Amino acid sequence: MDILRQPSGAKTEPDEILLHTAARAVDRCRELAAITDVAGETTRTFLSPAMRVAMVRVQSLMEAAGCSVTIDAAGNLRGLYAGMSDDAPRLLIGSHLDTVPNAGAFDGVLGVMIGLALVEMLQGQKLRCAVELVAFSEEEGVRFRVPFVGSRALVGRVDDELLATVDADGVSVGEAIRGFGLDPGRMVEARFNRAARGYLEFHIEQGPVLESEDLSLGLVDTIAGQTRGEIVFMGTANHAGTTPMRLRRDAVAAMAEWIVEVEREARGKDGLVATVGRVVAVPGVGNVIAGEARASLDVRHANDTIRRSAVDALISKAEEIADGRGLGMAWSSSMEQRAVAMDASLTHMVENAASAAEVAVLRMMSGAGHDAMVVAERLPTAMIFLRSPGGISHHPDELVYEGDVAKALAVGMEFLKMFDQAKDTHA
Amino acid sequence: MDILRQPSGAKTEPDEILLHTAARAVDRCRELAAITDVAGETTRTFLSPAMRVAMVRVQSLMEAAGCSVTIDAAGNLRGLYAGMSDDAPRLLIGSHLDTVPNAGAFDGVLGVMIGLALVEMLQGQKLRCAVELVAFSEEEGVRFRVPFVGSRALVGRVDDELLATVDADGVSVGEAIRGFGLDPGRMVEARFNRAARGYLEFHIEQGPVLESEDLSLGLVDTIAGQTRGEIVFMGTANHAGTTPMRLRRDAVAAMAEWIVEVEREARGKDGLVATVGRVVAVPGVGNVIAGEARASLDVRHANDTIRRSAVDALISKAEEIADGRGLGMAWSSSMEQRAVAMDASLTHMVENAASAAEVAVLRMMSGAGHDAMVVAERLPTAMIFLRSPGGISHHPDELVYEGDVAKALAVGMEFLKMFDQAKDTHA
Repeated sequence: MDILRQPSGAKTEPDEILLHTAARAVDRCRELAAITDVAGETTRTFLSPAMRVAMVRVQSLMEAAGCSVTIDAAGNLRGLYAGMSDDAPRLLIGSHLDTVPNAGAFDGVLGVMIGLALVEMLQGQKLRCAVELVAFSEEEGVRFRVPFVGSRALVGRVDDELLATVDADGVSVGEAIRGFGLDPGRMVEARFNRAARGYLEFHIEQGPVLESEDLSLGLVDTIAGQTRGEIVFMGTANHAGTTPMRLRRDAVAAMAEWIVEVEREARGKDGLVATVGRVVAVPGVGNVIAGEARASLDVRHANDTIRRSAVDALISKAEEIADGRGLGMAWSSSMEQRAVAMDASLTHMVENAASAAEVAVLRMMSGAGHDAMVVAERLPTAMIFLRSPGGISHHPDELVYEGDVAKALAVGMEFLKMFDQAKDTHA
Repeated sequence: MDILRQPSGAKTEPDEILLHTAARAVDRCRELAAITDVAGETTRTFLSPAMRVAMVRVQSLMEAAGCSVTIDAAGNLRGLYAGMSDDAPRLLIGSHLDTVPNAGAFDGVLGVMIGLALVEMLQGQKLRCAVELVAFSEEEGVRFRVPFVGSRALVGRVDDELLATVDADGVSVGEAIRGFGLDPGRMVEARFNRAARGYLEFHIEQGPVLESEDLSLGLVDTIAGQTRGEIVFMGTANHAGTTPMRLRRDAVAAMAEWIVEVEREARGKDGLVATVGRVVAVPGVGNVIAGEARASLDVRHANDTIRRSAVDALISKAEEIADGRGLGMAWSSSMEQRAVAMDASLTHMVENAASAAEVAVLRMMSGAGHDAMVVAERLPTAMIFLRSPGGISHHPDELVYEGDVAKALAVGMEFLKMFDQAKDTHA
């Protein structure tokens, strides 16, 4: 089978087909970016009016590519490109259709459009296995402050608590689903078919690593674990003019000393990232020594032990700094997310596919969570990153290079071949 | 003359008179604290309804003590306790009647009540010199965001710009004065009488220095100069999970490094205080590396050269930190106030008075501005601090010890004697 074969008589080279297909995928992302709940920007949340329009558009494209399309009870669009038999093993390829407020055009959507393009490039030709395109309804957590609604449905983790979660207008997830014309009582049918053998997700990197390495594609081996929380230093508010340095209990000074340690700790351990993104001083007036200072902490690493020991070290450091200054301190954790490994054999298959396609890929960690993280709980999963120019994401300036998309398509096609021929797939 | 002489036949000791008088001064402060624009707290701003009530009360007390009282065009209460002759040299004693929002009972008011108590202790007995009690209408800068309206009138510095300054309701200083029944056109008459030879102000310290030295009184030799401004670090906002440490341009990390340097600089120079009381991170979200960070800076020292060189060093340090991290930085100054020295000979006279009264006083800097700072521009000025328990001020918990007030009265009476007898006074 030559899935990159030219139409008979055409003079187009395979590379040109890939570039043309990549350009079309990028165009479609831009077209979908104009489907928005907020005019003038790209904002598309779970089961919103704009999401319905986007779903209709993507459904049409999937059907034109030869898929039979359904919408599951979580609002995920599922486009099945059948295999040789009804119970053919399935490869799921997908990402999400929802966006953050004022988003770029590629986060999530590009992964759906690449999956679609791969199926289109089959030009109706059947593989032994089936390919199921999945356009998840919700990943960003914007509407309900809970992310991964779509992929949780796929792995059977939409529970009553999630269904009862309400948005800013007091509408619950369950009510939103019913209001969209779907039946939350049929959520169990949203679970992946037992013929599913793997999940592949393409996604923009949302970071600067590939660009800094001058590479188009990354191969995620682990999605980092995360700890998020807040440190509070409690000192004494005092007059900035009348309180000598030696008599101060300055919460901002303590916080600053600690933030320097946060950076030092992270710089000292390979792959560790630690961020203080939010700082608050109370009362927060220039001529008053702050009596209280609060700093967020976000720590991530592919290895949970390294992450936890870094967090412990930073809490100890905060205690030490507070003690040395006669201040109080408190730590509160708001998130503990374990690292999730991608499937070793699928990931290896992507590596082989990249070799076959003569595309260099960088093994890397994902610092951000993705649908792949949730799906990986139950299905062998692999994830491919595309370079983010300038490292920019969640912003209208978000970009992707068409040449990188073409390389992703090339790797994807080789992967499809390998997956289709692999014994494991048909075991 | 023995101005502490006992009434004939009375058995009261001088110390008991002082303590009794001090207790009455403290009681009066508490009584005035109940006169407020905002029920349940102490808030009294420039020419407010509560201020009118407080002025009537203080006027009555001044008159009962033998003063002839006028209200000048800036709303200052002026109580003249006449000397031996109409053109007798005058000593001005005063402080302010206005308060910050939700204030304590002693900031400002105590200085007025101590001056009043000193005149009362004269029991109608004439000195060669006159004593003019001044209760300034405005020092805190609350209503018009411009402080020292009262003392500026005393030194002839109420200009058209100040008169045109408007409060939150769009009422100008000039309109407020007219609305109160005063005539801003007569502002020139608010200037101190040419017989004035000096100004003495008692005020709570508003800091912890006297308490830490276990002393009741301080003698201000200088009111510190101040620099206030803001440092901005400009980096790049990025994803906290996907941006490796080495590829960050983290504005909060730069700011933290700089705040540590601010504290180090101030600790390294005797008498220098430097404070970062306000910090802002943009966008200020826990999982986003801050693209911008802003920190206030407040630097004070009795020596302007030391202060300016510290500020210069800190700006250079910020540049260095920004450069080292590939960030931008900007400094903007919002206040440059030179240090103001108190009058050497009046201050020496206070020292002698304290010796005579057998009260230990600590020569110290004032880190905060006071009416004395403004008056000192034009009149020889001395300033006496009373210990602030816990260093607390601008807060309902603000306190003063009656014993400390008694010592202030003892020093004040000795000072009155010395001032009255000094050749300079009558030169």
